[in-house]
Amino acid sequence: MSKSELITPRTLKGFRDYLPDAMVAREWLIDTAREVYRSFGFAPIDTPALEYEEILVGKGGAESDKQLYRFTDHGGREVALRFDLTVPFARFSAQNIGQLGTPFKRYAIGPVWRGENTQRGRYREFIQCDFDTIGTESVVADIETALVITQLMERLDVGGFSVRCNNRQVLNGMLERLELVDEQVAVLRALDKLAKIGADAVTEELMTVAGASAAQAREVLTLADVNGSRAQVLDELVPLVAGSETGEAGVARLAEIVGGVTAAGVAEERLLIDVSIARGLDYYTGAVFETFLDDAPAIGSVCSGGRYDDLASLYTKQRLPGIGASLGVDRLLAALEELGRLEGRGAARPVFVPRFGGSLSDQIALAAELRDAGFAVELYPEDRKLGAQLKYADRRGLPVAVIVGEDELAAGTCQLKDLRDGSTADVARGDALVDALRALMSRGGMIVP
Amino acid sequence: MSKSELITPRTLKGFRDYLPDAMVAREWLIDTAREVYRSFGFAPIDTPALEYEEILVGKGGAESDKQLYRFTDHGGREVALRFDLTVPFARFSAQNIGQLGTPFKRYAIGPVWRGENTQRGRYREFIQCDFDTIGTESVVADIETALVITQLMERLDVGGFSVRCNNRQVLNGMLERLELVDEQVAVLRALDKLAKIGADAVTEELMTVAGASAAQAREVLTLADVNGSRAQVLDELVPLVAGSETGEAGVARLAEIVGGVTAAGVAEERLLIDVSIARGLDYYTGAVFETFLDDAPAIGSVCSGGRYDDLASLYTKQRLPGIGASLGVDRLLAALEELGRLEGRGAARPVFVPRFGGSLSDQIALAAELRDAGFAVELYPEDRKLGAQLKYADRRGLPVAVIVGEDELAAGTCQLKDLRDGSTADVARGDALVDALRALMSRGGMIVP
Repeated sequence: MSKSELITPRTLKGFRDYLPDAMVAREWLIDTAREVYRSFGFAPIDTPALEYEEILVGKGGAESDKQLYRFTDHGGREVALRFDLTVPFARFSAQNIGQLGTPFKRYAIGPVWRGENTQRGRYREFIQCDFDTIGTESVVADIETALVITQLMERLDVGGFSVRCNNRQVLNGMLERLELVDEQVAVLRALDKLAKIGADAVTEELMTVAGASAAQAREVLTLADVNGSRAQVLDELVPLVAGSETGEAGVARLAEIVGGVTAAGVAEERLLIDVSIARGLDYYTGAVFETFLDDAPAIGSVCSGGRYDDLASLYTKQRLPGIGASLGVDRLLAALEELGRLEGRGAARPVFVPRFGGSLSDQIALAAELRDAGFAVELYPEDRKLGAQLKYADRRGLPVAVIVGEDELAAGTCQLKDLRDGSTADVARGDALVDALRALMSRGGMIVP
Repeated sequence: MSKSELITPRTLKGFRDYLPDAMVAREWLIDTAREVYRSFGFAPIDTPALEYEEILVGKGGAESDKQLYRFTDHGGREVALRFDLTVPFARFSAQNIGQLGTPFKRYAIGPVWRGENTQRGRYREFIQCDFDTIGTESVVADIETALVITQLMERLDVGGFSVRCNNRQVLNGMLERLELVDEQVAVLRALDKLAKIGADAVTEELMTVAGASAAQAREVLTLADVNGSRAQVLDELVPLVAGSETGEAGVARLAEIVGGVTAAGVAEERLLIDVSIARGLDYYTGAVFETFLDDAPAIGSVCSGGRYDDLASLYTKQRLPGIGASLGVDRLLAALEELGRLEGRGAARPVFVPRFGGSLSDQIALAAELRDAGFAVELYPEDRKLGAQLKYADRRGLPVAVIVGEDELAAGTCQLKDLRDGSTADVARGDALVDALRALMSRGGMIVP
C-alpha cells in the first residue's frame, strides 16, 4: 500500500489517547477511590453507555441537549450516549430498587460524553467516579459522604486539602427571612461566582438578576463572611437564620454533621463549614460539599456533591431522597501531576531481565522465579546487545535489572543493576536475590510487592 | 407528576445493567487480569470510545459494517463507536509508537459496541480485556502470551483448563505440500468447525467450498488426529510437514514455545499443542491460542489470540508484527457463575454496624475504628428496630454484625453476631475485637483484610 493510500491516524477533536504513564496514574486513582467507597459499604454498579434519548433528555434543558451525542440506531430507536452517571443511575434505580431495597449505596465509574466546546483543557469524553446513598434522609448518609471525601483525599495523599460543607437550607432560611425565596436559583448562581468575580460583581448580579435591594444583597453576602472553627461558624449562623424554620433546621443539621465528622476524628482544617459554598445545580436541597487542594486552589473543587430530595421522579412514583458526590478524576490527576505528586504512584514497576548469556529457558525460569516472589518482571524479547537492551529499560523507566550470564548461571548468582545510578552488586539466587531486589526497588519511594 | 406522565425506565435491547453482585465479580475478574498482565510488564493504555468512521471501517468487511454504531456528530464528522480494541490499538500505535518505541506491550480493558443480533445471550455492549506485544517477532513474546493465559486461569481459579496452542505455519506447510495454499482461508474456516460439526461435515466442506479432493481432505484431517504429550505431538508433526519450509519452521517454532513454557513450569495438561485449533480470523499468521475449561467445554474458548504479521498497515508504513490475546470477560463470568466458582470472590464484604443503643457519635467512632483496622464497614443510617436492621444486613449478604448497646458501651465490649448462623459472642473492644472479627469473617472462605 503506497503512502498516499494510508488512512491518517488521528483521534476526534476533544478526544484523546491515554499513554501508559497517564493510564497507570488513572488506574491508581480509580483503584484508590474504589477501595475507599467499598470501605464504607458502597457497592459497584454499571449501566450502559447508550440509553434511549428520552431517558437522558427527560429533565435536561437546552444546555445538556446540545451536548448530547444522539442518533438513530439500526432498529430506528432514538438513542444517545450518557452525559453523566446520575441520570442513568436514576433510571437504574426506578427499575431495580424494588429488588435491591433501600437504603442503597452504590458507586459507578465510567466514561461519559458531552459534545461541548473543548476550550480550557476540557474533553468530550471523560471519566466520572460517583458514589451515592439513596432511600434515606438520615444525617448518617450526610456524615459518611463527608467522611468518604476526606478519606479519599488522605488516601490519595493530595497534600493539604479542605472539604467545604454547607447546607442549602441555611441559605434558604435566610432568603425566607429576606423574602427572596422565589429568586433562590438566581441568588445561588450569583453566590456561586463569589470566588471568581468578587463581592462587588456578585452584589451587582444579586440586584440586577435576582431583584434584590442593596440591603438584601448586603445581608446575603454576610453569609460569605462567616468563618472560623466549625463550632464558631455554627454559633455565628444561629442569628442569621433566627425565626426561619428552614434555616434553623439547616443549622441544626450542619451541627449534626460536625458532630459526626468530629467523632470520626476528622481534623478541623480538613472539613470546614463554609456557607459561601452554594453549588449552582438547583436540584440540591440539603448538605452540599466541595473540596479544594491547598496547593492548587485555582483548579476548583476536585470532589463535589450534595443532598437531593428525589432522584428518580421522572421514572417512578417511589420517592428516593439521597446524597452523593463525584470525584473529578481528570482534574485531580492534572493537579497532582502539576504538584509532582504522581511520582512513584500506581503499580510497581517491573524488574528488567535482559536476554544475555545463558539459554532462553534459563531466563524464562529466572523471570518465573521472580514473578512467583511477587515481582512484575519484563523479559526483553530480542537477542540484542546488552547495551541496547538496557537503553530500552531506561526509556521504559524500569529501575532495576537482574542479569544472569554464563558465569552467574554456573555460580548460582546474578548481577543486580540499579538502572537509576548504574551501581551493581552480585547476589546469590533465591531468598537473597528477593531480599536485595526488594531493598533496591524500594529506594526512592518505589512501590514494592 | 401523574403515573401516566412518567418515562418508562428501560434499557435498550441488547444492553443491560450490572447489579452489585455481578459487578463485584466483574471487578474481581478484571483486577486479576490487570495484575497478571502487569506482572509480565504489560502497561495499560486507553483509547476513545468514538473514532472517525474511516479509522474503524478501514479493513472491516460488510459484516462488521453492519455491526457498527455510526452517526454524524455536531461538527459534521462521520464517527462510530469502537467495535473492538484491536483496530483502535492499531490507530494508536501508528500515532504513538515513535514516542513509545518497540517492543511495546500494552493491555487495554473497556467496553465495545456491536449492533448485531442479540440471540444466544449476546449483548450489544460488552467488555474486552486484551493484551498485545508489538514490534517483535521473537518467540519470547509467543511464550509469554501462553504464560499470561495459563497464569490468568490459575489466578482466577477456574478449575481444570487447557490452553491449546497451534501455529498457522504448520497448517500452511501442509497445504503447501498438498498444493492447497490458495484455498487457505476456506480450509481454515472449515477446520475451525471441527468440534462443532464433526469430521464428515468438515470433509464435505473442504471438498465443496475449498475444492479439495477426497484424499486431500483426508490428509488435512489427519492433523486433527495428532494428539498426546507436547513432545509426542511435535514428533508426529515432523513427517506431516516434511519438505515444506513453512511447515518445518512452524513445527520448530512450536518446539521453542514448548521449551519455554516447560522452563516456566507449566504442566503438560495446562498447555497442549493442538493442531486442530485454526482460529477463523485470517489475519493470524503464526502461533494461535484457545483456552477451554474442563468443566464447561461447551462455552468455547474463554481466552484466544495469536500472532499477526503487521498490526497497523492501514495507518502507517512502519511494520508492526505482534502477538496478543483477549479474555472473554462476560463468557468466563457466566461459566464461573454456572460452576459455582464466584462464591466469596471479589471485595471483602462489609462488617455491619447497626444503629442501636449508644449515641450516633459512638457508632461512627466504632465504624471508624474498624475501618482503620482494614475492614469495610457499613453503618445502618436509620434509627430503626434492630430486627429490621439485621434483616437489611441479611438481604445485603453481610456476614457479621458488631452491636454496641448502652451496656456494651459502658463495659468497653461489643457483641459480635454471625448473621449466617445467628451465633453471638461478647468481645472486648480493640485488638480482641479485630482478631475475633477476622476469624469470624474468614469462615466459609470469606475474604479478610
